[in-house]
Amino acid sequence: MPNGAQILIDGLVGGGVRACFANPGTSEMHFVAALEEAPALRPVLCLFEGVATGAADGYGRMAGRPACTLLHLGPGLAGGLPNLHNARRAATPVVNVVGDHALRHKRLDAPLESDIGALARTVSAWTRRTYHAGELAGDVAQAVAAATGPPGAVATLVVPADVSWSKADGQPTAMPAATARRGLVSVDAVTGAAEALRPGAGAALLLGGAAARGAGLVAAGRVAAATGAKLLCETFPARLERGAGRPVVERLAYLAAGARHQLAGVRHLVLAGAASPVAFFAYPGQGGALVPEECTVHTLATGAEDVTAALEGLAEVVGAGVSPVREAAVRPALPSGELTAESAAAVIGALLPGQAIVVDEANTSGIWLPGATAGAPPHDWLTLTGGSMGQGLPLAVGAAVACPDRPVLALVGDGAAMYTPQALWTQAREGLDVTTVVFDNRSYAILNLELGAVGAAADGARARRLLDLSGPALDFVSLARGMGVPAERATTAEEFAASLKRGFAEPGPLLIACAVPALA
Amino acid sequence: MPNGAQILIDGLVGGGVRACFANPGTSEMHFVAALEEAPALRPVLCLFEGVATGAADGYGRMAGRPACTLLHLGPGLAGGLPNLHNARRAATPVVNVVGDHALRHKRLDAPLESDIGALARTVSAWTRRTYHAGELAGDVAQAVAAATGPPGAVATLVVPADVSWSKADGQPTAMPAATARRGLVSVDAVTGAAEALRPGAGAALLLGGAAARGAGLVAAGRVAAATGAKLLCETFPARLERGAGRPVVERLAYLAAGARHQLAGVRHLVLAGAASPVAFFAYPGQGGALVPEECTVHTLATGAEDVTAALEGLAEVVGAGVSPVREAAVRPALPSGELTAESAAAVIGALLPGQAIVVDEANTSGIWLPGATAGAPPHDWLTLTGGSMGQGLPLAVGAAVACPDRPVLALVGDGAAMYTPQALWTQAREGLDVTTVVFDNRSYAILNLELGAVGAAADGARARRLLDLSGPALDFVSLARGMGVPAERATTAEEFAASLKRGFAEPGPLLIACAVPALA
Repeated sequence: MPNGAQILIDGLVGGGVRACFANPGTSEMHFVAALEEAPALRPVLCLFEGVATGAADGYGRMAGRPACTLLHLGPGLAGGLPNLHNARRAATPVVNVVGDHALRHKRLDAPLESDIGALARTVSAWTRRTYHAGELAGDVAQAVAAATGPPGAVATLVVPADVSWSKADGQPTAMPAATARRGLVSVDAVTGAAEALRPGAGAALLLGGAAARGAGLVAAGRVAAATGAKLLCETFPARLERGAGRPVVERLAYLAAGARHQLAGVRHLVLAGAASPVAFFAYPGQGGALVPEECTVHTLATGAEDVTAALEGLAEVVGAGVSPVREAAVRPALPSGELTAESAAAVIGALLPGQAIVVDEANTSGIWLPGATAGAPPHDWLTLTGGSMGQGLPLAVGAAVACPDRPVLALVGDGAAMYTPQALWTQAREGLDVTTVVFDNRSYAILNLELGAVGAAADGARARRLLDLSGPALDFVSLARGMGVPAERATTAEEFAASLKRGFAEPGPLLIACAVPALA
Repeated sequence: MPNGAQILIDGLVGGGVRACFANPGTSEMHFVAALEEAPALRPVLCLFEGVATGAADGYGRMAGRPACTLLHLGPGLAGGLPNLHNARRAATPVVNVVGDHALRHKRLDAPLESDIGALARTVSAWTRRTYHAGELAGDVAQAVAAATGPPGAVATLVVPADVSWSKADGQPTAMPAATARRGLVSVDAVTGAAEALRPGAGAALLLGGAAARGAGLVAAGRVAAATGAKLLCETFPARLERGAGRPVVERLAYLAAGARHQLAGVRHLVLAGAASPVAFFAYPGQGGALVPEECTVHTLATGAEDVTAALEGLAEVVGAGVSPVREAAVRPALPSGELTAESAAAVIGALLPGQAIVVDEANTSGIWLPGATAGAPPHDWLTLTGGSMGQGLPLAVGAAVACPDRPVLALVGDGAAMYTPQALWTQAREGLDVTTVVFDNRSYAILNLELGAVGAAADGARARRLLDLSGPALDFVSLARGMGVPAERATTAEEFAASLKRGFAEPGPLLIACAVPALA
């Protein structure tokens, strides 16, 4: 008769879970032992919980089904929360398996005891503790179903050690979760959107979630072409399909002033899987909503609804027979000379291989990337959905595990890279085909901009020092090699191009420290 | 008229806060700007929130008053939670300052929005959000008071961005917090303890919290010498004073079997600032309490009471004129040849300088350390109070900031070091006199022990691989140099001794990768 850990793993595998990003401890040892007999579930060791949860996010975005994490009690879950915050904002399916003390041990308030449920609920749409091994089969099925959605979500199952090591009494309570599907939108929503988007109405269509890819994206392109509506995408899409041949879509800018400029004059905004846009942060004397006052916001479909079918229906109504405006296959020329954020973007645009998965946590160094890569071969673009730093390197790990036949390019700022550098070790251990570019500007450049905006003293040396990464300079080549990842430093556009070509040509990971000046 | 951020910093400085371990973002920029005019508050940049909170823990343990952290909304606090869990278990005074969105921005559910209060309450004895700049002076005073205790605790103040940037209307609400002092224990508690400890009763005195140092520790030694009671210390003291001339105290073992052996035959256990001991984890078929069934547990003083005065009173009752048994000044000889956990401990015992602060997250590689260092010159020993890994390197940062004239020795396992390696960069930036020894056994050795205990298959290659750090091997010399910390690798006892001597002799940080075989 199987023990709880074996029932749990059977349930995960039965629910389609194929990867487990793990940072286990003593209370998870029965789970680890049970992996021995579960070849369908690939265990991937991560040296820090934030890597495990970020990898699960990257996996779920690309695979469209959940990976699981394996975390050690409350402190282990806590370490994973920042990237679970991003996964929640991305609506990524993730199942957290969090080990806990044996039930009879909890009242003793042993050192690792804490309120796991309170931590879990801050990021999870579904949280449960299992109290008997016999309940595990049902609980894990519900966890997988809750994570899968739609919409995708974080689900957290807390498994006490004695539940893992005990046998189920009698038959497991088979309680298969109902399979859900996205709700269909009403005819009224489609006709209302069609009315709002009528030519000459000053309309825009804002895509988010599943509308940023596949058939929904193509249908949105048809709608825009037929109606003349502006086609926009949310600022931080979980996964945007773009590149040559894909419909032309403009992403809303991160800075509120830029986004307001993009939305100026829009009188009808139709939301397709996106929320009504708001500023990332508030500023003195500025409102937070980005939509112009005279603009009416219409919802075609929420993230919980079948936005793809809704866009296809809308395209039939307004754009039968019309094709989207598609990106031309145009790449920048390979630049030479000085390496800057702009020339680095041109190098990337010139060399990006087809089917690449691009993970973007480049922040200020990334502002030239969308333009430079718009006409590169078709690729996916994964962004920092929740603003919690340290997402890029782990996300690349998960995307590479999900899609072993596709090249992964991680573009990260130096500040961002230092939250979760341990992801590099997992890249090396698993032989993942990830090329990591660290934009090495030796600054929290985005905060230097903000500090100026709030009026720090002009000479503000004490304050500026808190945003400066130059003393001592981080040597990312040394850091990467220390974790088994080959690494090179590029100081000219030519060197960067040569390194990037090597990264794409050779299997396994490569890190490129890309020396660029800070924007600010 | 000052803005909220300036009022906040004034309040922190007025409350005795002298160090701010910071990982700020946009919503904290007014705080950062206000640092310009606050030379009494030392800002220390940390590249990951877990470093900031662990450093605040180390600072508070050594300074006896709180440092503050500066963290960025819910995700920033979340990243700091694992080490705040340890700080909570250590009863360390810590004030978290967590920036948040402007109040009018919160309802927009911007990407970084999350339930900060729920996160904070999992580790904090006191949590508050300030709604007006005029309330900040009172709120920060209460936060400092709540953190200071006694007992020390984590206090979290959530400061919306608009509260930081606004001026206080009229006079700040001056609401100085009452200064607290530890409650005195009753005469009954003292006479009850004296009765329990009478010679021949089979008694033990278990020290924890403030009883593990200073006058309380000396008084406890007198009590033990006068009564013949066994003198024990909790397994994971926040700060234990030990070494030559200090009272002889035996720490309870981490493994339950060892602790049960130490407590066998004890019929009366008197608690002085410690909780009744329990096993770290539960195991099938074993109880969690470590105290023998026939033993009666007595409480002399809890952590909230004045355990020092209680022990001094008890010593007057049972041991007037008696001196403690003190550790002799005996060091191991410097070993030669093979480098093992045992010979490394001997090297450390032979070379440890007086007044050292030892941070111990060595786990399995540390089992020989207590014996080897018992007779070294007087020093403080700081331990992993909450079991949340990644504490050692940050704790050393904070201890070194608190005590710039004392040498700090961080002893960490390789697995443990990889949770928060970014602490090394802060060591380099601040020029901290920390010698870090990484016990490089290329394994989660403690979990290999546990995996065997739960009965993984003998050949269990899939399971064992999840606990193995050898593929690829971590090169800590390269990692440290990448963050600006000089580093050396030692493969013999002689090399280790030479490196350790350099570490103690030279100012600033040094990392030593100490190549030892895993115990398991």
